[in-house]
Amino acid sequence: MSRNIILVDPLPRTVDLIMEPSVKARLHQLGEVVISEDRQMGAEQVDELLPDTVLIFGQTDMPKERLDRAPKLKAIINVESNFMPNIDYQACVERGIWVITPASAFASPVAESSLAMALDLARGITKADRDFRQGVEEYGLAGNADTFRFAGASVGIIGFGDLGRQLRELIRPFRNHVRVFDPWLPNEIIERADCVPAGMDEVLSESQVVFVFASVTSENEGFIGAREFAMMKPGSAFLLMSRAAVVDFPAMIEAAASGHIRVATDVFPDEPVATDDPVRSAPGILLSAHRTGGTRDALYALGSMAVADAELIMKGLPPQLCRRADPATAARLKSKPVSVT
Amino acid sequence: MSRNIILVDPLPRTVDLIMEPSVKARLHQLGEVVISEDRQMGAEQVDELLPDTVLIFGQTDMPKERLDRAPKLKAIINVESNFMPNIDYQACVERGIWVITPASAFASPVAESSLAMALDLARGITKADRDFRQGVEEYGLAGNADTFRFAGASVGIIGFGDLGRQLRELIRPFRNHVRVFDPWLPNEIIERADCVPAGMDEVLSESQVVFVFASVTSENEGFIGAREFAMMKPGSAFLLMSRAAVVDFPAMIEAAASGHIRVATDVFPDEPVATDDPVRSAPGILLSAHRTGGTRDALYALGSMAVADAELIMKGLPPQLCRRADPATAARLKSKPVSVT
Amino acid sequence: MSRNIILVDPLPRTVDLIMEPSVKARLHQLGEVVISEDRQMGAEQVDELLPDTVLIFGQTDMPKERLDRAPKLKAIINVESNFMPNIDYQACVERGIWVITPASAFASPVAESSLAMALDLARGITKADRDFRQGVEEYGLAGNADTFRFAGASVGIIGFGDLGRQLRELIRPFRNHVRVFDPWLPNEIIERADCVPAGMDEVLSESQVVFVFASVTSENEGFIGAREFAMMKPGSAFLLMSRAAVVDFPAMIEAAASGHIRVATDVFPDEPVATDDPVRSAPGILLSAHRTGGTRDALYALGSMAVADAELIMKGLPPQLCRRADPATAARLKSKPVSVT
Amino acid sequence: MSRNIILVDPLPRTVDLIMEPSVKARLHQLGEVVISEDRQMGAEQVDELLPDTVLIFGQTDMPKERLDRAPKLKAIINVESNFMPNIDYQACVERGIWVITPASAFASPVAESSLAMALDLARGITKADRDFRQGVEEYGLAGNADTFRFAGASVGIIGFGDLGRQLRELIRPFRNHVRVFDPWLPNEIIERADCVPAGMDEVLSESQVVFVFASVTSENEGFIGAREFAMMKPGSAFLLMSRAAVVDFPAMIEAAASGHIRVATDVFPDEPVATDDPVRSAPGILLSAHRTGGTRDALYALGSMAVADAELIMKGLPPQLCRRADPATAARLKSKPVSVT
Repeated sequence: MSRNIILVDPLPRTVDLIMEPSVKARLHQLGEVVISEDRQMGAEQVDELLPDTVLIFGQTDMPKERLDRAPKLKAIINVESNFMPNIDYQACVERGIWVITPASAFASPVAESSLAMALDLARGITKADRDFRQGVEEYGLAGNADTFRFAGASVGIIGFGDLGRQLRELIRPFRNHVRVFDPWLPNEIIERADCVPAGMDEVLSESQVVFVFASVTSENEGFIGAREFAMMKPGSAFLLMSRAAVVDFPAMIEAAASGHIRVATDVFPDEPVATDDPVRSAPGILLSAHRTGGTRDALYALGSMAVADAELIMKGLPPQLCRRADPATAARLKSKPVSVT
Repeated sequence: MSRNIILVDPLPRTVDLIMEPSVKARLHQLGEVVISEDRQMGAEQVDELLPDTVLIFGQTDMPKERLDRAPKLKAIINVESNFMPNIDYQACVERGIWVITPASAFASPVAESSLAMALDLARGITKADRDFRQGVEEYGLAGNADTFRFAGASVGIIGFGDLGRQLRELIRPFRNHVRVFDPWLPNEIIERADCVPAGMDEVLSESQVVFVFASVTSENEGFIGAREFAMMKPGSAFLLMSRAAVVDFPAMIEAAASGHIRVATDVFPDEPVATDDPVRSAPGILLSAHRTGGTRDALYALGSMAVADAELIMKGLPPQLCRRADPATAARLKSKPVSVT
Repeated sequence: MSRNIILVDPLPRTVDLIMEPSVKARLHQLGEVVISEDRQMGAEQVDELLPDTVLIFGQTDMPKERLDRAPKLKAIINVESNFMPNIDYQACVERGIWVITPASAFASPVAESSLAMALDLARGITKADRDFRQGVEEYGLAGNADTFRFAGASVGIIGFGDLGRQLRELIRPFRNHVRVFDPWLPNEIIERADCVPAGMDEVLSESQVVFVFASVTSENEGFIGAREFAMMKPGSAFLLMSRAAVVDFPAMIEAAASGHIRVATDVFPDEPVATDDPVRSAPGILLSAHRTGGTRDALYALGSMAVADAELIMKGLPPQLCRRADPATAARLKSKPVSVT
Repeated sequence: MSRNIILVDPLPRTVDLIMEPSVKARLHQLGEVVISEDRQMGAEQVDELLPDTVLIFGQTDMPKERLDRAPKLKAIINVESNFMPNIDYQACVERGIWVITPASAFASPVAESSLAMALDLARGITKADRDFRQGVEEYGLAGNADTFRFAGASVGIIGFGDLGRQLRELIRPFRNHVRVFDPWLPNEIIERADCVPAGMDEVLSESQVVFVFASVTSENEGFIGAREFAMMKPGSAFLLMSRAAVVDFPAMIEAAASGHIRVATDVFPDEPVATDDPVRSAPGILLSAHRTGGTRDALYALGSMAVADAELIMKGLPPQLCRRADPATAARLKSKPVSVT
């Protein structure tokens, strides 16, 4: 008798982390669910299940040999959110197997935090609280000596995928002039969002607030360094929201410490950051411990988007919510998988 | 020969504080400008100028006797932003003298700061930075244990004048359900802004984030106290953005210190706050030294709005940017004049 | 015993025309309602009621002598929507009597119709239907030979009161560049709505679509004539939505008939239009019989706004929804009262 | 020496119809352009070019045998906008050949026309003009007897692809409650657009205005018929904007002629419509000759989107503007190719 196995191998996630009960119930209606969440699913079990597997939720290695043994497989749904080189993407494409990930689940909380941190740098929220607690607060106009209005400030966005576009929607009421640098996109996409396509140097030198949402690729590691920080406007704000590797991190710290720019970062070259890392006492930086995306609601959205697209795929329809792996671009991405959450 | 005097008596402001050069030039085109800004204009000088005065910029006392001596006066433009009881408002109305103030100049920076502080309380921005500097940061989901998403959170607004309405526009992309309490307004005004009119108890008990923009009147002093804080949702956020006197301040501090709610305040019963005031080390409060409104751009807006309306008035047209003093409501307001900017 | 009379003298409206039952019920809670709606209230009855009258809804003549006899009167609420010279406005101001009108009730339906008619002219909706019925329709690109896209077209607005501002909000998704001419407004008001203040000639010569919402004053009668139509772009659209007297009507018809511009008009020098008026067969004009504002919902809004403000006034608060008569500007307006609805 | 052929076989389009000079220049920078636009490119020429062809712009037949002979082919870009069964889609997927079409170029003009026609039906624009020309116009409220306000009306959208989503954005200022029926989409997509997912019967029975943007598939031919029209609200509006085959056309005409609903249609079972087709004189219908999409700007957008994506593909990046053919869904679509424009 034919079985329809849903192979669930979600580490570092767990099912309950990413699925509310109602979503989990929908998952179970799609087939016979087999879960391994205390450890990655063992090779033996995977091999045994593959002949009847229709869907994989997780990051199971899927080289060509395994795909050969999974004739009913319709989709591999990465629930970690970064595509890794452990799948033969081309072979999946040839067989009509969708390889997708609900990565955009993180766009909404990251964009919200990015705006929170940009407003903080502009208006001096955290600094003003610290000054107050230290008894050196200044009132009224004097308390705004080093601030600027976010409303109307020129904004630059580096990397205009889900995160950048969400941020752009959030800041609409502030009526900023927004420049975007994204070499993977045609100008039309940028212009439709009422932004101006620009080169990276222009984005850096003309913007009062710069948001970095770019992924790390083999081509852009450390592509924002001392030269780039030097071209930023004095007093402008730089927010690093994607991956530490896109910047020269020490150069960024130096640019903030010197008072040239103000910086906020959610990511660090090594996480957790060492206890004695000097960044902990660096001036001019707003620190966030890789926590802008990993909210309760984002993780649940990860699961519900994955299941909703699985439902479509099982009906023979294309997925609508997850991002597809493109063999060519997947090869360029260099993301490390997350180790925590 | 007929003179047209513009009497400028702007303390605690000064002309250069509120007018950029181009605006000051427009002021001078309206008539013969006489300024007193190192001290309030003396009675003798005022009396001498009144017969030829067409406009007053400032907070000069204008009882009926003085109005009687100013037959050419068309407008009194308060540039401090709060109407005070030193003017015979009814007599001005009877003579067709506009009494106006460009108070809404502060709405934009206050709304921006209010959102910044609300996002801070929701997402834990200042707290996360402090934890990081103290070496106790948590990463990813763990770092979001005590946070909530501002997007989609229920919002309450108490006082729906310029400030409340600006804040409402800023938060549109976050798609909140917004309840408004304002006993001075008809429901239509609230509903047109896509908000729901509600009683104060409902606003407090049903909202995840409550913004207070209400002015102090003889009727609402201390109207938010221990009973009201107790009815708020655990973990919800309360932002006091208008006047300290509308709340029972110690009860607010206690509600935050106990961990029941989180609080942000820009105002204090006595400013500057005493060096040893315990609020400086109070937990659960985000502190701001009466600095959300007094930005460079807001002060310039004060001046440009005042001059733009003066230009209209001199042409026989009604003012469009400033708020008019209404004799009946002016009597209810209890604002203290600001002592510093 | 003291009575509180609400004098209701609404012709050419009637109470049921402008008030839904729930609104009428609120009216009755404000005092003792006395209505004359088959004919204007007689002088004798008015005089008898005035000593106890607190509110007047309607267009009753109120010269100084009558105001003298109405010591309790708090407000005169014009429900026709145009201020007329039958009231001593200055005397009302001196006594603190509000004179207001809920004229903005018509803004929403007029703006909606204005957009409908602008889209019609741009995309040729009515013309295409007529061609189809006559068997001369063209398909696809050929059917669009004389059309233009409203999206992205340059727009001009003449008169930026309630109507113009509502229209501006409705067209936001079309991303037009919008120029505004309104000599009664400071630039700030126009710029805040993301429009560009401009002179009338620039509005006419640079816009692909021009909307006229200006009221008639003693200064602007017939101010758009042959010279002005000649400066418009060939093929551009001109929509007359306020009063026929602001244009040179024959010149407008000629500009349309010659094929130079396309025109839509809701108003005519004499209404109803004569049976044999040549405008009925004029080419290039979209005709509307003064019907863009007088919708069921607008008339009900008129009543509900009037009652909501009356409620505030009875509580000693200023009105929030209606427009106030300004003695100086009321004198400049030359509107004819409407004879029908 | 290696050549890079761009095979351009665009009938029924021509290059100049879809590409402005600057776009055509970009096309030529991508390789050696070979065009056949007076007739479909002959088999012999195609076969000769295929070994060096990198891009195909057009609707050339591409069965597996031809794909076998095109080892350098990176993309087939359909510029007609409907995928047809003359391509081996699965073979293209296996070889990593993009098959795409810039169909969304038509979304903007169609959405604009759809709103124009909906406003026309709601407010009676075309009918009022016709009445005026026939001397039977009614003024004011009487002229609005059979109208309704589009603002605030309940709206239903059937088919929520590019067209439906663009329409949804255009109507945001009207604050409608919007229900969407689209069985190919997860609820999340609909909810993110602030719409409510609903079944088709609910959409039809609860909406004051229903827009049909659904494509024809093997499953939905004639799926809106007499039963469905009967469940619509009396006086509601039905706009058919996609393909005539999704409705029972005679039933639609009957529903309009009977006065039950009002209808607008841009499409007809046979186009051009026969000279004596009774639809030409049908009452209650607004007629448009398949002309809502085929605007000058839309055709140019078709070309510029095609070239922009071709540029990305030639750089090894995925296309961003065109829609991809999905082998499974391509098989379900039943569109007839357009014969004109």
